[in-house]
Amino acid sequence: MIKSIGYAATSSTAPLAPFSFERRELTAADVQIEILYCGVCHSDLHQVRSEWGATPYPCVPGHEIVGRVVKVGSAVSKFKVGDMAAVGCMVDSCRQCSPCKEGEEQFCEKGMTWTYCSPDKHTGAFTLGGYSSTIVVDEAFTLKVPAGLDLAAAAPLLCAGITTYSPLKHWKVGPGQRVGVVGLGGLGHMAVKIARAMGAHVVLFTTSESKREDGLRLGAHEVVVSKNKDEMKAQRNSLNFILDTVSAAHDLNAYLSLLKLDGTMTLVGLPPQPAPVSAFQLTAKRRQLAGSSIGGIAETQEMLDFCAKHGIVSDIELIPMQQINEAYERLVKGDVKYRFVIDMATLSA
Amino acid sequence: MIKSIGYAATSSTAPLAPFSFERRELTAADVQIEILYCGVCHSDLHQVRSEWGATPYPCVPGHEIVGRVVKVGSAVSKFKVGDMAAVGCMVDSCRQCSPCKEGEEQFCEKGMTWTYCSPDKHTGAFTLGGYSSTIVVDEAFTLKVPAGLDLAAAAPLLCAGITTYSPLKHWKVGPGQRVGVVGLGGLGHMAVKIARAMGAHVVLFTTSESKREDGLRLGAHEVVVSKNKDEMKAQRNSLNFILDTVSAAHDLNAYLSLLKLDGTMTLVGLPPQPAPVSAFQLTAKRRQLAGSSIGGIAETQEMLDFCAKHGIVSDIELIPMQQINEAYERLVKGDVKYRFVIDMATLSA
Repeated sequence: MIKSIGYAATSSTAPLAPFSFERRELTAADVQIEILYCGVCHSDLHQVRSEWGATPYPCVPGHEIVGRVVKVGSAVSKFKVGDMAAVGCMVDSCRQCSPCKEGEEQFCEKGMTWTYCSPDKHTGAFTLGGYSSTIVVDEAFTLKVPAGLDLAAAAPLLCAGITTYSPLKHWKVGPGQRVGVVGLGGLGHMAVKIARAMGAHVVLFTTSESKREDGLRLGAHEVVVSKNKDEMKAQRNSLNFILDTVSAAHDLNAYLSLLKLDGTMTLVGLPPQPAPVSAFQLTAKRRQLAGSSIGGIAETQEMLDFCAKHGIVSDIELIPMQQINEAYERLVKGDVKYRFVIDMATLSA
Repeated sequence: MIKSIGYAATSSTAPLAPFSFERRELTAADVQIEILYCGVCHSDLHQVRSEWGATPYPCVPGHEIVGRVVKVGSAVSKFKVGDMAAVGCMVDSCRQCSPCKEGEEQFCEKGMTWTYCSPDKHTGAFTLGGYSSTIVVDEAFTLKVPAGLDLAAAAPLLCAGITTYSPLKHWKVGPGQRVGVVGLGGLGHMAVKIARAMGAHVVLFTTSESKREDGLRLGAHEVVVSKNKDEMKAQRNSLNFILDTVSAAHDLNAYLSLLKLDGTMTLVGLPPQPAPVSAFQLTAKRRQLAGSSIGGIAETQEMLDFCAKHGIVSDIELIPMQQINEAYERLVKGDVKYRFVIDMATLSA
């Protein structure tokens, strides 16, 4: 077994604290990665605190992982020792069902293996995530980090990046289109950058006047403060696509009314309660309300390559591992521009 | 002016009663139709009673019109005296905007002219509908009734038929697909017939055990009584498309969970209150919730031709004009299989 150190929560109310554990020995298909950086996703916090159902403890969160390959299994062909590699939300899937065969492992009919808190097929134990020194992952679920990307700022691409890239791609966002992005947080700021790079006219919707300037800096062509009724009204029936990244409860109908004929609004945030949707808003312009969940492995690689080509990374605040609990408190308040990333060198410091 | 008789409501609380009025003289592009049959749509009742906002009175409802051409304007090319013709929900639109040019007049950006209660571009007065002896309509908004269709039973195709045909076509329902139809009323029974004729495997969802047999008779391959949890569970993740025809408040999430990956559920009923929608149900399988509204004129003609080819008409109960108020009471109770059609010969009897 391979020794690893990290930070874990041992109950829904305990802070994250230092934790020693072991990774499985490499199978022929596995790579071992020395983790350099791990992004901090709001999902980490939800699961650490058992806010999405009962979390198995100890829980080592983290699914925005970038690091260096330090060992490879005998059958590994994509990676060699020294390569930069990345791991996102999934580390395995059934690989047999129709979505898996089509490269949409995120919709695996048997259920994929999440990077943490998910039963590991090899060991039977729950997977442990990226707030740790090292990880062992099948090469089929390991991504190559293209040259030129800042490694720390690239980490959030593995969840925030693919979660926004996938729906923008699926609904064919591109030149000539007016695309709305709702919410300027970890997901929203990636969506603005990616939609802009895809060639769309990007309209950012935020509740806070203070984010207007930042929205423009990040690449939005227009910023609408959603509390301003006149600004909202001016966008009516004008958008081809809206990516809604907000997890808090909010009025979906106000945004549906901004879609053109045959426009789609896709949710990637997960408000805890069902949101009221007006049938009239849908029928009036044959609009669609959809949802999207991360992206497949091949698409995640495509996204990384796209981001490298367009010079896109996340805006991050690099923190030492020891500050994770304070970072969680700030995350709850939305006080981060726009993603915390843990510098794993600090773990052994 | 052309004398017409019909039935009108003079206030939101008054019953429909005999009413004499005049139609405009024919323009060069108009046809005059002697109305033989007019279907009774639930929208008629909503508008007669001002349930969708303030209705202009007197209100002559009716937008499922079938009749005989008795006069044509000098420039009319599609019709000659004696032809069977039909009129649906719209009698005009701007004809200039992008949806109009693409044959989707139901999404006219300037707003189409509805068959009743809508300002007539020619006279400035409100349009008066099909519960009447005769109507004058631009030939561009007049449909040909294909030979072989029972005229009375074809009348509901003009609204119930196109409202279900259009989304089934738009979302490419066909062989190899499992298609759900929610609700067995005027719209639902047409959806079952049309989806079946399009080659899909049709699963009808109804709240009432008593409709099971009728569902199968109408063409459903399976009937699910939605109150039965096991029957519902057996359909999970199995449907490519669902057409939801129910106007009463109901749980949309229970149906969304039945859609496969990338499946769409389209609403054509209009529940009065926004319905709670779970983001999890959408994101889990990249599902879509959409809405659809009637169909364009060219598509309505296509639907009529499709129905003639496949021998599809509505199941109707033919009533004399004088029984319209009793019919409305029964309509409120859902006591009709599956559409009332008024025999206009009774108007002058």
